[in-house]
Amino acid sequence: MDLQRIETPGLAHYAYLLQDGDHALVVDPRRDVDIYLRRARSMGARITHILETHRQEDFVMGSTHLASLSGALVVNGQHDCFGRGDIRLGDGEALAFGSMRIKAVSTPGHTPESMCYAIYLGNSDSAWCVFTGDTLFFGETGRTDLSDNATAAENAGLLYDSVNEKLAGLGDHALIMPAHEPGSVCGSGIAERWVSTLGDEKQYNPVFTTDRNAFAQTRGSQRLPRPPYFRAMERINLKGGIPMPGSTDAISTLNASEFSAQLSDTADTTVLDTREPEAYAGGHVEDTYSIWLDGLSSFGGWVAAENDRIALITDRNDDISQAVIYLNRIGFDNIVASLKNGFDEWRKSGLPISHCRTITPTELNNELAAYQILDVREPGEFSSAHIEGAKSMYVGDLEQHLDRLELDRNKPVAVTCSVGHRASLASSILRRKGFQDVRNLIGGMSAWQAMDLATTREN
Amino acid sequence: MDLQRIETPGLAHYAYLLQDGDHALVVDPRRDVDIYLRRARSMGARITHILETHRQEDFVMGSTHLASLSGALVVNGQHDCFGRGDIRLGDGEALAFGSMRIKAVSTPGHTPESMCYAIYLGNSDSAWCVFTGDTLFFGETGRTDLSDNATAAENAGLLYDSVNEKLAGLGDHALIMPAHEPGSVCGSGIAERWVSTLGDEKQYNPVFTTDRNAFAQTRGSQRLPRPPYFRAMERINLKGGIPMPGSTDAISTLNASEFSAQLSDTADTTVLDTREPEAYAGGHVEDTYSIWLDGLSSFGGWVAAENDRIALITDRNDDISQAVIYLNRIGFDNIVASLKNGFDEWRKSGLPISHCRTITPTELNNELAAYQILDVREPGEFSSAHIEGAKSMYVGDLEQHLDRLELDRNKPVAVTCSVGHRASLASSILRRKGFQDVRNLIGGMSAWQAMDLATTREN
Amino acid sequence: MDLQRIETPGLAHYAYLLQDGDHALVVDPRRDVDIYLRRARSMGARITHILETHRQEDFVMGSTHLASLSGALVVNGQHDCFGRGDIRLGDGEALAFGSMRIKAVSTPGHTPESMCYAIYLGNSDSAWCVFTGDTLFFGETGRTDLSDNATAAENAGLLYDSVNEKLAGLGDHALIMPAHEPGSVCGSGIAERWVSTLGDEKQYNPVFTTDRNAFAQTRGSQRLPRPPYFRAMERINLKGGIPMPGSTDAISTLNASEFSAQLSDTADTTVLDTREPEAYAGGHVEDTYSIWLDGLSSFGGWVAAENDRIALITDRNDDISQAVIYLNRIGFDNIVASLKNGFDEWRKSGLPISHCRTITPTELNNELAAYQILDVREPGEFSSAHIEGAKSMYVGDLEQHLDRLELDRNKPVAVTCSVGHRASLASSILRRKGFQDVRNLIGGMSAWQAMDLATTREN
Amino acid sequence: MDLQRIETPGLAHYAYLLQDGDHALVVDPRRDVDIYLRRARSMGARITHILETHRQEDFVMGSTHLASLSGALVVNGQHDCFGRGDIRLGDGEALAFGSMRIKAVSTPGHTPESMCYAIYLGNSDSAWCVFTGDTLFFGETGRTDLSDNATAAENAGLLYDSVNEKLAGLGDHALIMPAHEPGSVCGSGIAERWVSTLGDEKQYNPVFTTDRNAFAQTRGSQRLPRPPYFRAMERINLKGGIPMPGSTDAISTLNASEFSAQLSDTADTTVLDTREPEAYAGGHVEDTYSIWLDGLSSFGGWVAAENDRIALITDRNDDISQAVIYLNRIGFDNIVASLKNGFDEWRKSGLPISHCRTITPTELNNELAAYQILDVREPGEFSSAHIEGAKSMYVGDLEQHLDRLELDRNKPVAVTCSVGHRASLASSILRRKGFQDVRNLIGGMSAWQAMDLATTREN
Repeated sequence: MDLQRIETPGLAHYAYLLQDGDHALVVDPRRDVDIYLRRARSMGARITHILETHRQEDFVMGSTHLASLSGALVVNGQHDCFGRGDIRLGDGEALAFGSMRIKAVSTPGHTPESMCYAIYLGNSDSAWCVFTGDTLFFGETGRTDLSDNATAAENAGLLYDSVNEKLAGLGDHALIMPAHEPGSVCGSGIAERWVSTLGDEKQYNPVFTTDRNAFAQTRGSQRLPRPPYFRAMERINLKGGIPMPGSTDAISTLNASEFSAQLSDTADTTVLDTREPEAYAGGHVEDTYSIWLDGLSSFGGWVAAENDRIALITDRNDDISQAVIYLNRIGFDNIVASLKNGFDEWRKSGLPISHCRTITPTELNNELAAYQILDVREPGEFSSAHIEGAKSMYVGDLEQHLDRLELDRNKPVAVTCSVGHRASLASSILRRKGFQDVRNLIGGMSAWQAMDLATTREN
Repeated sequence: MDLQRIETPGLAHYAYLLQDGDHALVVDPRRDVDIYLRRARSMGARITHILETHRQEDFVMGSTHLASLSGALVVNGQHDCFGRGDIRLGDGEALAFGSMRIKAVSTPGHTPESMCYAIYLGNSDSAWCVFTGDTLFFGETGRTDLSDNATAAENAGLLYDSVNEKLAGLGDHALIMPAHEPGSVCGSGIAERWVSTLGDEKQYNPVFTTDRNAFAQTRGSQRLPRPPYFRAMERINLKGGIPMPGSTDAISTLNASEFSAQLSDTADTTVLDTREPEAYAGGHVEDTYSIWLDGLSSFGGWVAAENDRIALITDRNDDISQAVIYLNRIGFDNIVASLKNGFDEWRKSGLPISHCRTITPTELNNELAAYQILDVREPGEFSSAHIEGAKSMYVGDLEQHLDRLELDRNKPVAVTCSVGHRASLASSILRRKGFQDVRNLIGGMSAWQAMDLATTREN
Repeated sequence: MDLQRIETPGLAHYAYLLQDGDHALVVDPRRDVDIYLRRARSMGARITHILETHRQEDFVMGSTHLASLSGALVVNGQHDCFGRGDIRLGDGEALAFGSMRIKAVSTPGHTPESMCYAIYLGNSDSAWCVFTGDTLFFGETGRTDLSDNATAAENAGLLYDSVNEKLAGLGDHALIMPAHEPGSVCGSGIAERWVSTLGDEKQYNPVFTTDRNAFAQTRGSQRLPRPPYFRAMERINLKGGIPMPGSTDAISTLNASEFSAQLSDTADTTVLDTREPEAYAGGHVEDTYSIWLDGLSSFGGWVAAENDRIALITDRNDDISQAVIYLNRIGFDNIVASLKNGFDEWRKSGLPISHCRTITPTELNNELAAYQILDVREPGEFSSAHIEGAKSMYVGDLEQHLDRLELDRNKPVAVTCSVGHRASLASSILRRKGFQDVRNLIGGMSAWQAMDLATTREN
Repeated sequence: MDLQRIETPGLAHYAYLLQDGDHALVVDPRRDVDIYLRRARSMGARITHILETHRQEDFVMGSTHLASLSGALVVNGQHDCFGRGDIRLGDGEALAFGSMRIKAVSTPGHTPESMCYAIYLGNSDSAWCVFTGDTLFFGETGRTDLSDNATAAENAGLLYDSVNEKLAGLGDHALIMPAHEPGSVCGSGIAERWVSTLGDEKQYNPVFTTDRNAFAQTRGSQRLPRPPYFRAMERINLKGGIPMPGSTDAISTLNASEFSAQLSDTADTTVLDTREPEAYAGGHVEDTYSIWLDGLSSFGGWVAAENDRIALITDRNDDISQAVIYLNRIGFDNIVASLKNGFDEWRKSGLPISHCRTITPTELNNELAAYQILDVREPGEFSSAHIEGAKSMYVGDLEQHLDRLELDRNKPVAVTCSVGHRASLASSILRRKGFQDVRNLIGGMSAWQAMDLATTREN
């Protein structure tokens, strides 16, 4: 018996590979499924079952493709949001897996079709572990506002009941195996734990420590980002996702003049620059978006859409395949080119270079009046503490709604987020919109607060 | 500028990746082309040209697939055996590649369409290197009997002229870049060199050191194996080959009872056991063929055909992907299963086990009269030195023509080759044919001769 | 927060790397410590503490070396068997580690100094997990016969109390993190679990489900192997172990004649052949010991001693470094040579080759009377079921006490164990002792019983 | 037979591994020798000889350590600059190596002890290849000014004679195997070739195409940088170098406050920031030196000395080991700390951040009068073309001789080199010296010239 938690960086996602003797099952596979096949083989096992906890919104699922490669059966629930399944389990139904039993638990709330799967060893009548999907995280539960804000409180109530009435009784020493770690767009406030038990969760998780009304009310007023690509994911995942496109090694790596020509030929190519914020500020190609490498799978989904032509500028050649996979994972497959040899290739070419600037907390604090401050964090982050006078707009909304901020184009803008990554994307958007003097606050509100500079909670 | 020689083990094949600035060309790519794309990228180059020296017979080419992945142009000659090409060069025609020139040289002989490509640097009028395909190897030339034995001498004459009249004049310090190293089925007697020049070859290569008649006569009487899969390769390669099938990680790894059931269900599955000869002798699954891992790409092509169902028994899980790739490279894609965890899985299962035996040179020499000796090397190897009284049949012909040997089934058979690998395949064939007492001579004629035991050249 | 369980194959050992923010701790590091440093770095953490549960007997510890490389502090208990420690915790004493607390629990039984370490998160007063060393495994406890058989029952009583009186109260949902998985020489009967909680263990672990007297009595009569190298380990580990010797890449890979000369020059070199049993039976170098690769760290310790000169014959070059590390881990550093290119190198050299034979369960069952049967499993395995008439001696005792078995050298010996690995070592020992006809029962008692052939429990 | 050219990036150095049957030789090994041992093993060969072409100045040699690990013999010449050797060959002396012969050729010029080694195959009387060390590169020869500028012309004459009188006669198709590729500090103007022959070189290499006087005169006036660490290398290499220090994985990765404390505690720590120039400009820790990763082995030797305490700031954790090895290769072993998780760790800490700026060629050209321009390339690069009015000082001399430039601290300084890396180091030095407004010209003179902006050759 072995269990491996397989993390997908950039999505803060956990899939699981559970082996019992000759066979293995995978819970919530991502689109690039080779890792599950290889690991199962090295365990000496063959994948026979794939468990889906729900129709994912934040990445392309690999269930259907993995099933076709391995011959495994797809196991899920009976709700229509599961558009394809070989074994459709009703609430409370069980399925044998080697010497184990899998018991399905219907847990609506995060989404209407959400399922959890409890694993029982041998003849034990208390669960050994529960794959909780986006229903129950460490110290947190899945967001309930995905359909729309209006039903967030109602869904939160459903989720509260699912956890307290159905999961709570599975046994205090049942291990919790959630689908996300901190950093996911599917739930804010996830705790950093390696593993937890139901008993642990009962001690500190708000879904257990607050009452139903308070829980629903808090959730109902929570405003989390909903990137536009979520809708495409839901459509694609209705049938269990789609296979990866061809080789990630086949992306053309162009020299600077070829890259430039490619951009000129097709005006609608979205260029993503994956270098760190300071590097982007120090020099970049005009009209590109700044999204750090690990941010591609989430923030790429704000600036590009499913079939857009995308070109890449990376820090080094070794990052290209990673960047392509990050985009493929959210269904962006039309990567038409990458600049070879990192920014060095462009730097020395004599082609036009743009740059903006950085500003330190000390510098900004000393000259607050000289700057318009734009804070691009989520509303919840902004309201907890921000620089007095800062304007707030979530980075994802900036390109569409910048006008609402009524910024003065003749006055420098200092842009901030928590550390500087989202502010770099925001800076690149401002630059695209024609703002001349844009400065990324290095270290963002983390550094600002670490230096004990003044903040406010008022708007 | 960089040049990498990329070896394909199991085929003794060399492809080349030549980079000049931003661009690279590949000579004679194999079917699994990712390695060329990755290496070009790490050179900071994009593949723009693919050179084909001829329509390969011994493996599936990757030209057409690599061209579609990279956008590169396929460059070859004007003969009809090239069924697809973007740039068709006539004899003597040149093509610019960055700061280099590529000059095509038509060199019929090994095959009628064979081309060599000379590379000139800058404005130099002597060639820097020549990609010689199967025309000129180190110390050897390509075989000329591929169409049939009758025309071998005639083709040898053509090849002699191609080399002496066309290549010889390219300059003594031109580097020779051939398509095969020692061990290839495309030419026996290839010398072990890292690289060589035309000047070097003129000193010791028979195509330079013997006269035309002698060369043609020697070649005309040479008898080299022609594995049946060669015909399929020619058909597939007429259009520049086909892409690899899906993931090599997707082959089902079955436990012993599943594996056994798979074989029972479909009587026509060919099972290949890739362990070393001693391991096979010590215990194996009945009716399997013994072909060592590195021998799959050549000897697999004698016992199976293009669409046959194939199952694998390997020494360890890590060998499975390698075995699958070796078979894919000669177009065998229907790999239906592999036994998990090596032979250990079968050993402990209680399913029927077969075994045969080994014999040492000393033991055999002490009791020569007690054995029928079967020597399965090529005719040329056999005639150079063999054990007195040994019967000769090439391992590739054994399954079809075993009856011609009129072996006594009631008397032990000692099987030998050069070291023991081909003898293990022959042993497995004899066992399939019902021979009870079959013994592989460990170390084969290499050990026999190293011990100074008696041999003869007479038949 | 992250936790990684780092397995050491061949020793069935688990070390743990627990990260909290910038810092990490390692529990029970093995001798080759680079893996802990690399993994901590990729977690973005620095190792600040090393926890020792006890003075290991079965491998060289890496505590002292890891401490000197990383600057970490060695944490252990106050018993004299810990000869070196920076922080010596008494029973019940606590230590802060980032936001966690480590509470030491003195748990004598397996060894007198054995400690467990409970980890508490934040302000929680129930333990999140417990590093249980060799005190508590999944479904099993550590052996208690290490000092000598006479005190095994008494120690078992102590261990029973340690678990029931000290660990039991840490909370049912505390995770158990033991130092061994199934296959360890430190405890037989370990269950296959990925992770377990105290609550789980209370349901099925004999230390919880039987009473003190029964537990002590069972343990007192248990006879587990005590390889001779254990004494050296205890001596070396008193001070927290020693660093690895130089590069594993520096082992000389010799050709057959050089290898042979090396053996002739120094008559006292122990040669270990790491190939699978069938391969060894089919052909081997005379006087070598057959120990499969993953068996080196345990069975190598029966046939060689700390400073013996050791030479290696492996299946392939890639196995050499692994074999060297396996031996280094138990303190065997004097590896003087390895045969290059696997057995192929010897096979073709013309140097003397030896071979023995294999026998299938069916063959043996058909001719039982023709064979002396030698069963080399542990006494407990033998007594549970064996072939009628089989003689029993543990493989580890065979070289020293073979005479006691009074085997007839003129009659074939069939050797068996559970599957065939230990029987291969036993076969090689019999061959060294001059037995001519030795046959390894392929698949061993596993295959025999899977075929429903007759067994007995009587001696 | 196999030959591998093993590149050492950052040093532009080539070592060679030549295999013949069971044995291999290494030419000019670097300090970290594991790669040679591993590659030889995978060739199935044992290293028996180590050839030294000369006492290296630009890196720590691995000869003595590799000899002790492998048992190989060190082969070199009879000059006193070789302080240790097992086989000291005189000019023209030969040594058997398997089926090959090695002929030593004494070729003073680059250094007095310089040797070349010609390899002859079988009985051939023309050389197959020549290991030419720093005597003959592709299209270039080794620098002759290492002892001092005064003897550069005289040494150049010696080198001219060595090549024309000794190497020239080895045969036009002998392959040239030099010790450096373009980018080495041991010779400017090396051509980009994969391999070359003596015949090729005679066509275009100045040592063949110019006469002795002209050659000596040109060389005599050449001024190449002589980094201060060269002297230490000569001392260390007199005895064939020293082993690597312990594990590169053991460098402490500190969080921002620990890193900061480390710097405060020991004022004399040299901090090297290995990120790209734009990233450094956008934000950095005060008083650090900017040296890009691949520049550490050369430019690290200008700002630090052998026993200096060094701390590292890298772009990502994966770069740390590489940075440490780069420094170890020039004998800098006292690496006391590295910042964990790249600059992100510092950025968000609230600790003081410094930044400078970048400027594009267009911006600088538009406001030339507003800037002091500092060109930090080598004198030869500067004199070939520079911006009118630019002041010239080689980056290596800047820290010591900045005053000589008499720059105005109240006026912005634009710093340039060829592309921007050396200018980033120069910028960091200016910042350390208290200059406030320092701007790195992105793309440097490469971009400037690619944009056809005005340059001059006059000083």
